Amino acid sequence: MAYSPLLQDLLEALRCLPGVGPRTAQRMAFRLLEQNRDGGRRLVEAMDKALEQITECERCRMLAETELCWICANTGRDHGTVCIVESPADVIAVEESASYNGRYFVLTGRLSPLDGIGPDELGLHLLESQLDDGMREMIIATSATVEGEATAGYLASLARQRGIKATRIAHGVPLGGELEFVDSSTLSLAISGRLNLDE
Amino acid sequence: MAYSPLLQDLLEALRCLPGVGPRTAQRMAFRLLEQNRDGGRRLVEAMDKALEQITECERCRMLAETELCWICANTGRDHGTVCIVESPADVIAVEESASYNGRYFVLTGRLSPLDGIGPDELGLHLLESQLDDGMREMIIATSATVEGEATAGYLASLARQRGIKATRIAHGVPLGGELEFVDSSTLSLAISGRLNLDE
Repeated sequence: MAYSPLLQDLLEALRCLPGVGPRTAQRMAFRLLEQNRDGGRRLVEAMDKALEQITECERCRMLAETELCWICANTGRDHGTVCIVESPADVIAVEESASYNGRYFVLTGRLSPLDGIGPDELGLHLLESQLDDGMREMIIATSATVEGEATAGYLASLARQRGIKATRIAHGVPLGGELEFVDSSTLSLAISGRLNLDE
Repeated sequence: MAYSPLLQDLLEALRCLPGVGPRTAQRMAFRLLEQNRDGGRRLVEAMDKALEQITECERCRMLAETELCWICANTGRDHGTVCIVESPADVIAVEESASYNGRYFVLTGRLSPLDGIGPDELGLHLLESQLDDGMREMIIATSATVEGEATAGYLASLARQRGIKATRIAHGVPLGGELEFVDSSTLSLAISGRLNLDE
């Protein structure tokens, strides 16, 4: 036996964190126990509270401990625009870009009939009721994968049925990206989606 | 505000873990909340128990939830040999080498008078009483740093005073190490500590 039972339990439990293998788990456990028990106790408390109280926003399905998340509850935001993303992390990414002031809708996944993920699993009935409630534009920010594109197509049809403008975020060469290091699919998208500089 | 208050608390608390920055903390928090709440709850419980119950072994200062750690409590081990290491992680490393069957003593640091770390802080009174109790050999496995060497020198003098054999683990080129990639201090140690193949 290489560890005491409680240490062994802690090491195994730490491995539920993404990117944490046996070595990292050991380093984390020893660091907490030897040098930072206060930090460990704060972590226990914060994690306990988060797991107990954080659920989904009733409107946009973002993670939140209140009925409406802090974005939906913000009356200063444009309620006529919805940005549709796949995950809560995507909401944070768009927020950090500081380029958007509307609402979000979190699919928590993408359409994948083979895995049993259809419109119901993505909460699209909830989205549809919001589309019917004075929405002007739907910005589709699903990922640039086969499933993400299929989901985008489905979402666009929902918008079209209601006469709502549907847009898709642009794909292309990232800023600072040198052409020789950009993958060919992205480059192909960037060329086919080229903009006319004369306009 | 980019996160809800509880999410913000969780993200800050996660950063007490070594190697966890803002991005990793976000990834961990979202993974737990979205996909693995059961794992999160197990982690809360394991961490809580470990922080409450794990202290130091009375004899060797290894982390343990019992008065004697599992190594000191093991009657099948050689109680006449003590391997002195700097940290609990070092005990695990030696145990994993499967090359040692004696006891340990964990300094939890090394002599550093400028930082106020003297023999008392390293628990050497505890070690001395064990040396007086029939110890035959002291294997010094402190790190190969200036402070580690100074600590080794001090420990060796404690053994010498009592007529106990003191040894130091060998330093040199690691197995599989190619000479061109070994740093010059290590190579210098390996050459000055060369073994006579004729013996």
